[in-house]
Amino acid sequence: MRNIKIIIEYDGKNFAGWQNQPGKVSVQGEIERALHEVTDEEINVMASGRTDAGVHALGQVANFHTNTNIEIHKIPYAINSKLPKSIRVTSAEEVEERFHARYNCKGKTYRYIINNHEFPSALNRFREFHIAQELNVEEMKKALQFFEGTHDFKGFKSSGGSEKKTTVRTLTKCELKEENKIITVELSGDGFLYNMVRIIVGTIVDVGLGKIKADDIPDIIASCDRTKAGKTLPPHGLYLVQVNYL
Amino acid sequence: MRNIKIIIEYDGKNFAGWQNQPGKVSVQGEIERALHEVTDEEINVMASGRTDAGVHALGQVANFHTNTNIEIHKIPYAINSKLPKSIRVTSAEEVEERFHARYNCKGKTYRYIINNHEFPSALNRFREFHIAQELNVEEMKKALQFFEGTHDFKGFKSSGGSEKKTTVRTLTKCELKEENKIITVELSGDGFLYNMVRIIVGTIVDVGLGKIKADDIPDIIASCDRTKAGKTLPPHGLYLVQVNYL
Repeated sequence: MRNIKIIIEYDGKNFAGWQNQPGKVSVQGEIERALHEVTDEEINVMASGRTDAGVHALGQVANFHTNTNIEIHKIPYAINSKLPKSIRVTSAEEVEERFHARYNCKGKTYRYIINNHEFPSALNRFREFHIAQELNVEEMKKALQFFEGTHDFKGFKSSGGSEKKTTVRTLTKCELKEENKIITVELSGDGFLYNMVRIIVGTIVDVGLGKIKADDIPDIIASCDRTKAGKTLPPHGLYLVQVNYL
Repeated sequence: MRNIKIIIEYDGKNFAGWQNQPGKVSVQGEIERALHEVTDEEINVMASGRTDAGVHALGQVANFHTNTNIEIHKIPYAINSKLPKSIRVTSAEEVEERFHARYNCKGKTYRYIINNHEFPSALNRFREFHIAQELNVEEMKKALQFFEGTHDFKGFKSSGGSEKKTTVRTLTKCELKEENKIITVELSGDGFLYNMVRIIVGTIVDVGLGKIKADDIPDIIASCDRTKAGKTLPPHGLYLVQVNYL
């Protein structure tokens, strides 16, 4: 059987998240339906991980097994022809039988976009989190640096989601850029707990508002106490940018 | 009576263009309805110019007369509270009685975004024109330079729209940037004919495809012949970025 790895972009606004849910339109469900139409097989598509309702993806990765003989370079065209335009398969690649998009994932990069203008953007209203109160960007940058490295992120995890054995994760990149009051936070790491990005950025926003001091971040991380961290920011500012494999 | 100038951002996807049209939802209609709800007056809103259905605005300018005594800094909040989120008034300013957003307009800047990736973007499907065939960006840049300056743009105008006396216009900036296969064209000028930006960029795309030679652009402009120019590109790649007044 062939094993095919695909890269997928989607507009989170239109879906109840990645994962199949009864009675709801999910990205996984749409891709599985499209594959069924194309191959006439019942195909299960496995992603690198779930994304919540409203969360966008620029480079989600998934794989599936199939007996179809469609040439590999034609696979994206075939699937896309059956998908809504809010989901695009941007590449397909033949991989070895044992490749698994979730188990073999070595790291991910997420982006969170904050609009700090007085008014929310009409065009980007489903694409960024708007906050009108002025944020201290320099303090936010300082605070974010404390997240880099290996920590127990127990305090930066929502309940629910899959319960993993360990809550220790390593963030290899924690970057914050600001341009014309649009603040972009990028986090890369070996793995992310449920809502971890949205809680880290929510905490950083509290620093920007002066509710939390940047220098208190190490203690907040060490406390492993969810109540000491900031709010979980809304999903529509979040993008799964890239998934890495060896 | 007060005369108030406002700057407006809108998502063109949701509207049948700027101008009121019977039975259709227009940006003008929505703003006039919102102003009526806020002031209980029948207010006519005059913009710097129309935008077609699907065309976006980052900085459309309009003005209106009112007897309301709402403080000027509260005007955007008041109007926005009655508008769909796909329209945002981003600023308001008291102007002199004789200011008119259209008659006093001294120039505009438009942007057109082309996606030259193999597949269209799921997230930006209503925000950029997608063309999969590879474009020669250097030739497009060369071609675009010929449009700068004062020309009779009769060949770059669709029929319809308001029939102005002269088709001579001056373009003060013609800029093309490319980054990761996203091509952004920005044109500034003292005025634009109906569909002029979309036809100029359509012509530049034909240069990128090798259908027209860059060096033939001066002759095509001089011919004043619409059939020699390229296609009118679709509206959803177009943004009214800024409107200038003295």
